[in-house]
Amino acid sequence: MASLGDIGVSALINILTAFAFLLAFALLRIQPINDRVYFPKWYIIGARTSPKHADNFVAKFVNLNLKTYLTFLNWMPQTMRMKEPEIIEHAGLDSAAFLRIYLLGLRIFGPAAIVAFLVLIPVNVSGGMLFFLSKELVISDIDKLSISNVQPKSPKFFAHILMMYLFTFWACYMLYKEYDVVASMRLNFLASKSRRAEQFTVLVRNVPRVPDRSVSDTVSCFFKKNHSTHYLCHQTVYNANKYARAVRKRQKLQNYLDYNQLKFERNPNKRPTKKTGFLGLWGQQVDSIEYYQQKIKELDEKLTMEHHEILKDPKRIMPAAFVSFNSRWGAAVCAQTQQSKNPILWLTEWAPEPHDVYWKNLAIPFVSLSIRKLVISLAVFALVFFYIIPIAFVQSLANLEGLEKVVPFLRPVIEWSFIKSFLQGFLPGLALKIFLWLLPGILMTMSKIEGHVAFSVLERSTAAKYYYFMLVNVFLGSIVTGTAIQQLHSFLHQSPTQIPRTIGVSIPMKATFFITYIMVDGWAGMAGEILRLKPLIMFHLKNMVLVKTERDRLKAMNPKSIDFPEAIPSLQLYFLMGAVYAVVTPILLPFILIFFAFAYFVYRHQVINVYNQRYESAAAFWPHVHHRIIASLLISQLLLLGLLSTKKAANSTPLLAALPILTLTFHKFCKSRFEPAFRKYPLEEAVEKDAQDEASEPEPDMKSYLCEAYLHPVLRSIEEFELFELGVDHNQAHMPSQLATEPISRSRSPSPVNEQENKVSPKMQHLEVVVEQESSYTHHHKTSALNVDGMHH
Amino acid sequence: MASLGDIGVSALINILTAFAFLLAFALLRIQPINDRVYFPKWYIIGARTSPKHADNFVAKFVNLNLKTYLTFLNWMPQTMRMKEPEIIEHAGLDSAAFLRIYLLGLRIFGPAAIVAFLVLIPVNVSGGMLFFLSKELVISDIDKLSISNVQPKSPKFFAHILMMYLFTFWACYMLYKEYDVVASMRLNFLASKSRRAEQFTVLVRNVPRVPDRSVSDTVSCFFKKNHSTHYLCHQTVYNANKYARAVRKRQKLQNYLDYNQLKFERNPNKRPTKKTGFLGLWGQQVDSIEYYQQKIKELDEKLTMEHHEILKDPKRIMPAAFVSFNSRWGAAVCAQTQQSKNPILWLTEWAPEPHDVYWKNLAIPFVSLSIRKLVISLAVFALVFFYIIPIAFVQSLANLEGLEKVVPFLRPVIEWSFIKSFLQGFLPGLALKIFLWLLPGILMTMSKIEGHVAFSVLERSTAAKYYYFMLVNVFLGSIVTGTAIQQLHSFLHQSPTQIPRTIGVSIPMKATFFITYIMVDGWAGMAGEILRLKPLIMFHLKNMVLVKTERDRLKAMNPKSIDFPEAIPSLQLYFLMGAVYAVVTPILLPFILIFFAFAYFVYRHQVINVYNQRYESAAAFWPHVHHRIIASLLISQLLLLGLLSTKKAANSTPLLAALPILTLTFHKFCKSRFEPAFRKYPLEEAVEKDAQDEASEPEPDMKSYLCEAYLHPVLRSIEEFELFELGVDHNQAHMPSQLATEPISRSRSPSPVNEQENKVSPKMQHLEVVVEQESSYTHHHKTSALNVDGMHH
Repeated sequence: MASLGDIGVSALINILTAFAFLLAFALLRIQPINDRVYFPKWYIIGARTSPKHADNFVAKFVNLNLKTYLTFLNWMPQTMRMKEPEIIEHAGLDSAAFLRIYLLGLRIFGPAAIVAFLVLIPVNVSGGMLFFLSKELVISDIDKLSISNVQPKSPKFFAHILMMYLFTFWACYMLYKEYDVVASMRLNFLASKSRRAEQFTVLVRNVPRVPDRSVSDTVSCFFKKNHSTHYLCHQTVYNANKYARAVRKRQKLQNYLDYNQLKFERNPNKRPTKKTGFLGLWGQQVDSIEYYQQKIKELDEKLTMEHHEILKDPKRIMPAAFVSFNSRWGAAVCAQTQQSKNPILWLTEWAPEPHDVYWKNLAIPFVSLSIRKLVISLAVFALVFFYIIPIAFVQSLANLEGLEKVVPFLRPVIEWSFIKSFLQGFLPGLALKIFLWLLPGILMTMSKIEGHVAFSVLERSTAAKYYYFMLVNVFLGSIVTGTAIQQLHSFLHQSPTQIPRTIGVSIPMKATFFITYIMVDGWAGMAGEILRLKPLIMFHLKNMVLVKTERDRLKAMNPKSIDFPEAIPSLQLYFLMGAVYAVVTPILLPFILIFFAFAYFVYRHQVINVYNQRYESAAAFWPHVHHRIIASLLISQLLLLGLLSTKKAANSTPLLAALPILTLTFHKFCKSRFEPAFRKYPLEEAVEKDAQDEASEPEPDMKSYLCEAYLHPVLRSIEEFELFELGVDHNQAHMPSQLATEPISRSRSPSPVNEQENKVSPKMQHLEVVVEQESSYTHHHKTSALNVDGMHH
Repeated sequence: MASLGDIGVSALINILTAFAFLLAFALLRIQPINDRVYFPKWYIIGARTSPKHADNFVAKFVNLNLKTYLTFLNWMPQTMRMKEPEIIEHAGLDSAAFLRIYLLGLRIFGPAAIVAFLVLIPVNVSGGMLFFLSKELVISDIDKLSISNVQPKSPKFFAHILMMYLFTFWACYMLYKEYDVVASMRLNFLASKSRRAEQFTVLVRNVPRVPDRSVSDTVSCFFKKNHSTHYLCHQTVYNANKYARAVRKRQKLQNYLDYNQLKFERNPNKRPTKKTGFLGLWGQQVDSIEYYQQKIKELDEKLTMEHHEILKDPKRIMPAAFVSFNSRWGAAVCAQTQQSKNPILWLTEWAPEPHDVYWKNLAIPFVSLSIRKLVISLAVFALVFFYIIPIAFVQSLANLEGLEKVVPFLRPVIEWSFIKSFLQGFLPGLALKIFLWLLPGILMTMSKIEGHVAFSVLERSTAAKYYYFMLVNVFLGSIVTGTAIQQLHSFLHQSPTQIPRTIGVSIPMKATFFITYIMVDGWAGMAGEILRLKPLIMFHLKNMVLVKTERDRLKAMNPKSIDFPEAIPSLQLYFLMGAVYAVVTPILLPFILIFFAFAYFVYRHQVINVYNQRYESAAAFWPHVHHRIIASLLISQLLLLGLLSTKKAANSTPLLAALPILTLTFHKFCKSRFEPAFRKYPLEEAVEKDAQDEASEPEPDMKSYLCEAYLHPVLRSIEEFELFELGVDHNQAHMPSQLATEPISRSRSPSPVNEQENKVSPKMQHLEVVVEQESSYTHHHKTSALNVDGMHH
């Protein structure tokens, strides 16, 4: 138990750490050499290019303008300058909605903190039970401000119950308002988007195999019959995983070729050579450019064969298809209705946007899906409650004796007392740390096995799993001592009314732990987030070792998306802590408020300058956020109920029992009021949008546009596949007519070179012309790869 | 604890009772006077008329043909003569599916009983633990055959676990097959039906109020815009509850008039008179025929006014409408999609068939619905667990002293020892018996408050509530001694693993109780069902006292529908008993099998000869039946788990833990595989059916047919309203063209009289011609009421 003073010291240390991080960030971000680490988003959208034209060589890497050092903290006001609609425009609705979660935290807990400080803390302090006990027990000052200080059977508990009611009503009111806002933002966002493939397209899975008939025929027959006036065309799904691997290999070769050609251009006297053996260390000396050109040619032949095979072999066609309609209305109808008499065939759902599709899972049949779901739920349960078993096993192996057996020659070093004590302290935790570091990856793999077909859904599913893990192992695990298995055991053998009491009674005692947690994980964590130490180091390392061409530099810079699967569950843990401690130990609230405010600034900066979302789900995660905050409220109510029942406040406690029921009713109401906006697409909206399109642009060539939008990216063209892998959305907000002619030009600064070839290439790489395509590979690729952000001119 | 001998005696008594009932039935049913009690269905469909043409007066009432007495048991083979498709044709799919539940019981428990007798009983008997104990304890013979006879820690429990697995797999296999069959029966049934209003119509609720615009305009605008090519017409819903009351009053007056006119016809010399005062006992003497004619005329004027007001007053128009489409495809699309941006407005669902609509609940707004649902769920919870409190209170009042205080003059009678002991035994149970008798009504009222809009849904919801009540108070209440409140208390304060043990350990001991229950409630109950003692007495009483006209006789005969809300939950209790005891005390299974077989015969007879379903939901209750049988399996598994854990069979018990998970997975799979067939209407089916109609009858006048199908019956015509109230479905399987001309003629034997008037009347009674209608009321009514089953000629 820490006193208020201890907490103050801890807070100071953490504040200083955070400030040090911020200072480092402020200094590092203005160095040109780090520009691509701290502002990659601007490079990707083409608003920023490398500062190569600086006169001074040093100025390329270090900021010599001293004036900028004086204003090194100005990133904070800068982040606030961009308004929400601009953020949506700039980074998408997902990012904007993500920022709103932090604002929601401030809105819920801000007033709650004020009321709690004005009312509850005086009530708690005046109780003074702990003053009498303090000589016998070690009581922290914080406990004097908490509910622990109120004497059992005291009528003061009415104040806590009232506060819980007020807090719940306030939180529900804010949640309702926020859900309303986000739902209408989503609808507006979807409405404001111009024609996009996913608005007209439905993903159909479990297409039945009809003997002597191709999948494509079956699909077109079925939809021509059942959606006669609306069906436009469809795109079958090919199993192109093997082809994708070959394409990646070709990319690598192309990269080497580009590098060598650049080398040759700079130094035209000496043709670069290489050895053909392992890692280029031995073997025959050959001309590099010729060697790679030869290799690429061989691979291209193989690729063409493979490409042909994919298109011809019926086994490579998966029983799934993207079916496009001639109006949003038609697609909305198909996505929401049942198609076939057998409800596990012809399953329709909205197609994810092309970048969001997780191609590998498109072919899983229905029965297999049910089994996968079962297996994964069992696995998640086991992981949450029993993960400690394998780790304890590894820990028992990874002790000093084990180490000495494996590496006997190190024995003298290990026996040194300093190193020995270091290892003894370090080794047991190592397995756990490795596991926690691997955890998000493990959970993502589980979600992939579960069979979701879009990255956005995969991430949401991973986030849910991560939340359960955090809830049980971080939150409950910190409150109730003992491992998760012990908890599970005691939960199974305790009565349902006993569990909230067991947990509730230890809540006030753990307040200081959670305050420290908020400061270490929250405050310092956020400062670390903005510093981007790992990407910074990785970028410079890659730049020194790996980067050969501009394409490589783009890869090294790639900031990826916000890590929703980790960020959202961690965030929700703070909501849970806030809800649980708002009434019990309100002193915790300011710490959470600071976290929310600080994190809001940081992520606002990151969203504007760093992250580049791979997909746009239009805030589809909001229902999950909402549900879990409601779950937090329920947990806090049950725990307070348990806590009060140990305080013998028999006359006041039953008053609380109505609260969970009211909260659940609110949840149900919100679910039916808002959730359809996130799952379905209202026909009213579809009709309006169709009419608008009709008025503005009467007859676009929808068919040719839609039919190619959902081709497996690897089959489309190798160049587009690369952009796809990098997450560059070249056809965002494109009209169909534009798409066919200018695939990249919008997302980069104007590049006059090779415009003609670029114009030809995407058209050439459609399925129909694939045979003639080989010859254009080499030439085309050279230009487009160097072109990618138009900066080598 | 009863021995096998005791059970045998009890079985004998119950078998004899059942046989006595059957004998009574067999004798009563061949008496012509009871014909309308035992064969009302045939009267309603018009295949049978009163045997008035017999020569002998006595033969009108008593069967004098001695030959028929010799074959008095031939109803049993007779019931089997009708094949399932004929039953569907004759009584509807609901009844046919209801019969299949009993067959399913036979199919699940038949093989289970054989295996259990061959394997489990020898295993149990050979254990012989109870032989050693029998001197000390009173052990029943039945327990020697049950799991109680196996010694703790015995490896024989593997046999029980294996049996449980086998039983579960077998039950799931049968459930799967049956669900499959019923689902395809449903689809075929729906497909085989000719054009019916509900196939083209969608119920829209929560139509938003637009200022200065009528609901009708809002609806037509919205659907013209959002379903432009499919919308046909709509029918707004009027609040006609007041009007309906007036119409019922008019019906009564008309009935008196008919009676008096008949009286006058038979005895033309004396005009019937009546007194105007209370119950016709005093007051002014008037001519009856004139009096009633005058009264009806007055009421008709009021009715016309009210009718006008309903159609004009916008407040009487509810924010709901029945919207009809020009194809099944259009209706299927509208019913399954979200219409509006605000998901709690414009809620669409399939319209129930016109007879199934519960008009009163159509106007409940969404928010009120959520609150109603919450309140009713709390009320059901309270009813299930705390119903005993008010009953105990009433019981404490309704004792002998209380009775003596209220009726002091009865004191001498009450003090007689015989009467005293009778009352002492009778009174305490009286409150409980009255409550149980009222229970289905109470639950139905609750369902009505919940806001369902169709009788079929109301009945399903009532059945669910009744099932919970039976499960807690009959099943658990019989196993665990103590009231439901005590159980609830102990459940809340026991650990989740303790509850199955507490219940499981008392299961084998209660086997004899349940065997007796099956015989009393099941066997004798079924015999009582076929005897129809209450309807028999009521019919003859009404016939003597109340029946004045043929219309009254039709009313007195009205057999109503099968009582699904009571019959299905009781039936499901037998599945639960069977599942729980299949492994524990298999000797119970034959009793259940006999019940299922006997009940199957009885209900087959009743379905063919007696009941007349008010509505046809096309087996919509099947998912509920399926879910609850799965719930029974889960309960039985958990209880066996609990029972085995008290037997210290630690090495075998964990094997059982996988079974509930597998069962749940099976449940989930079935839910997605079959449930959509009961909730949605596949577009494939809709398109096929539309095409068939197109081919067979290209251009019917759909609009005029559909627009009137969903008029509130009371607004349609008074005659149709009467038929509606009696549950006579005059437009079943009608083509639109037929409907307009011959509403009743199909469902009765040919009646040449007044064909012309009949042809005219329904046309005249549409909304547009309602003003001119008054004059035709009297004349028209006289004929049509007498006409109703064409038997007075």
